[in-house]
Amino acid sequence: MRQIITLTTDFGESYYVGAMKGAILNICPQVCIVDITHQITPHNILEASFFLRCFYSYYPSQTIHLVVVDPEVGSERRGIIVSAGRQTFIGPDNGVFSLVYSQKEVDKVICIDAKQNFGLPVTPTFHGRDIFGPVAAWLAKGRPMESFGEKIEDYIVKPLLSIQKVGENLLEGTVIHVDKFGNVITSFSPEDVSNVLGQTGTPKFFINGEEVSQQYQFYAEAKPGEVFFLIGSSGYYEIAAYGENASAILGVDCGEKIALELSEFQDN
Amino acid sequence: MRQIITLTTDFGESYYVGAMKGAILNICPQVCIVDITHQITPHNILEASFFLRCFYSYYPSQTIHLVVVDPEVGSERRGIIVSAGRQTFIGPDNGVFSLVYSQKEVDKVICIDAKQNFGLPVTPTFHGRDIFGPVAAWLAKGRPMESFGEKIEDYIVKPLLSIQKVGENLLEGTVIHVDKFGNVITSFSPEDVSNVLGQTGTPKFFINGEEVSQQYQFYAEAKPGEVFFLIGSSGYYEIAAYGENASAILGVDCGEKIALELSEFQDN
Amino acid sequence: MRQIITLTTDFGESYYVGAMKGAILNICPQVCIVDITHQITPHNILEASFFLRCFYSYYPSQTIHLVVVDPEVGSERRGIIVSAGRQTFIGPDNGVFSLVYSQKEVDKVICIDAKQNFGLPVTPTFHGRDIFGPVAAWLAKGRPMESFGEKIEDYIVKPLLSIQKVGENLLEGTVIHVDKFGNVITSFSPEDVSNVLGQTGTPKFFINGEEVSQQYQFYAEAKPGEVFFLIGSSGYYEIAAYGENASAILGVDCGEKIALELSEFQDN
Repeated sequence: MRQIITLTTDFGESYYVGAMKGAILNICPQVCIVDITHQITPHNILEASFFLRCFYSYYPSQTIHLVVVDPEVGSERRGIIVSAGRQTFIGPDNGVFSLVYSQKEVDKVICIDAKQNFGLPVTPTFHGRDIFGPVAAWLAKGRPMESFGEKIEDYIVKPLLSIQKVGENLLEGTVIHVDKFGNVITSFSPEDVSNVLGQTGTPKFFINGEEVSQQYQFYAEAKPGEVFFLIGSSGYYEIAAYGENASAILGVDCGEKIALELSEFQDN
Repeated sequence: MRQIITLTTDFGESYYVGAMKGAILNICPQVCIVDITHQITPHNILEASFFLRCFYSYYPSQTIHLVVVDPEVGSERRGIIVSAGRQTFIGPDNGVFSLVYSQKEVDKVICIDAKQNFGLPVTPTFHGRDIFGPVAAWLAKGRPMESFGEKIEDYIVKPLLSIQKVGENLLEGTVIHVDKFGNVITSFSPEDVSNVLGQTGTPKFFINGEEVSQQYQFYAEAKPGEVFFLIGSSGYYEIAAYGENASAILGVDCGEKIALELSEFQDN
Repeated sequence: MRQIITLTTDFGESYYVGAMKGAILNICPQVCIVDITHQITPHNILEASFFLRCFYSYYPSQTIHLVVVDPEVGSERRGIIVSAGRQTFIGPDNGVFSLVYSQKEVDKVICIDAKQNFGLPVTPTFHGRDIFGPVAAWLAKGRPMESFGEKIEDYIVKPLLSIQKVGENLLEGTVIHVDKFGNVITSFSPEDVSNVLGQTGTPKFFINGEEVSQQYQFYAEAKPGEVFFLIGSSGYYEIAAYGENASAILGVDCGEKIALELSEFQDN
């Protein structure tokens, strides 16, 4: 069975990706490296965490997911190895794995002992190349995760997709991602909405002064340019405009507040 | 022999590419996935079709080419598997394979029966992950294409690179691609021009009010900034400006009309 | 042992990368292709050379590095194969390997005889697909580099990272790269500074009318938005602003002049 290592970073187009891949292949030349994206918005832990949540479960068990969005590199922040759902996650302990913790039972989290020799001198500015990449490669070669450091329980969990009840049937959330089509992905999933409000119904959305109340099942159901919402492929509600850019039409971007109101209740 | 699956999509930088790769590797972990591009202009079937035409023939036989530019995902549009020129093509039946049909004899086209179980629940918004990726992986594992559905003959063919005779020796075409260097790739190939006009000669181009009549064999033959044309590596005429961006100089972009006039005829 | 070919180009998002990968895989389907970047600034030999210098040494020996930034394609410029430091480099002889020559002893440079049959007709506009890719693939399959042409000694070396002494303790250099975070990577390394000035001390930088004199070890040591310098992961001095874009704050981009003044000397 060929080992797979996926890469999700905010490195952009530079030498960083090439150097990290080299550090991995130098230790484990047989490994299959899979680029997810290297265009995470700089230091955006929510975006990286959301992407990870949306792709990791499609991978075979034993896959190793390397996520390097690491604004505090060089400081006292810890590096961790997480085992959950029969997969392995490696990266800084800054909350980037929060949406894995909330989905899967965590088997074990190891704090990487940075004083170990991973095969490279360790700089204070590039742990993707000097620590996380090599650790992923050694794991892919079969070295047990316990050998990299001590087990910890106090790893950082951030409430990244939290939604708040702000009225009787009113919730406040955020825009967590705008994709290349201009689709606006919200932090609301039908399950979370129903859990927080204690009932199920028909949602409508309020964003940047606009109301969006038309729901479709797929994009091409709408008229060209019509703004509507659907349950996206991530399982979260998404605002879209068929053949056009909903983000541009609504003038909204990542991080924007968005409200959801539930009406026409059904029995839960 | 290792199976190859190439990926051409308009997904951009999101979780989409990562999820589709996972869906493939989960079924066929040994496959070699090759990224072509994920930056096709959203919903631009001509661009995807042209790129495909320009790269697929360089691949070994048995290669599987996955092309997901799919604005009508979730609607009644069909998904297809095409066997042509000893290679296999998978994607929506929206004309994206038209430039393969016009180059190679088509052996067989299968309409994918979307009610089959491909290993994943099928959402109405992401068939790259839920259908096309898994189908590619099963084909790579050796499952015969006939097992995915019925043979069809009425697959959609679009006249994507059509050029029109609009005068005695005058043709009208379009700009089909502007590359990162600003080179303007036209829908005219020497063969098509000669076929439509019934003779061979020296072309000149009219675009956005400018005439381009200087031909070179390669870019560095021109003076810096000089606008000229050549036969590009795609086999199509291309307007360029050495060391500068011809698209910016001429103020033209994808989709722009362009005329070609033939003179100084040679015997065909 | 699986052969690795890395790809560094200025091709951008087009069919070029896909066609070159096909030309490689058609000859050597087992090879492991590693994308470094295809977003080198068009024709920017310094950028490609700097990236190469920063990643190649992390790869296993026998790795083949293909670098195609080739403005003079089709002209008399030569194509070369370089053997240095137990790795192999392929690309145009335009100085793009200068920073490898300055780091490693060169074993041998072969001038590719372009009249050979590499398996493809050779166009005058795309040697990445028609020559360099196929040569890399044949090398990966074990064909000896001597079989591709004659040994040469007069390959082109460019002084890409040269720094100049312009005053008693004053040096002039350039900005060689601005990364996605806005970090400004300079052409000064501590070693070069000490070699040129004959002594070691505390540097400060002058760029676009601003002085930068605060040094840190890692990014998060600084206050948010504070402009400072550090020794980057490339080994070169780098101007940064924690959590913000130093390039935008200082209004500087690639190619900009930058001065370094040394004071508070230490014994060398």
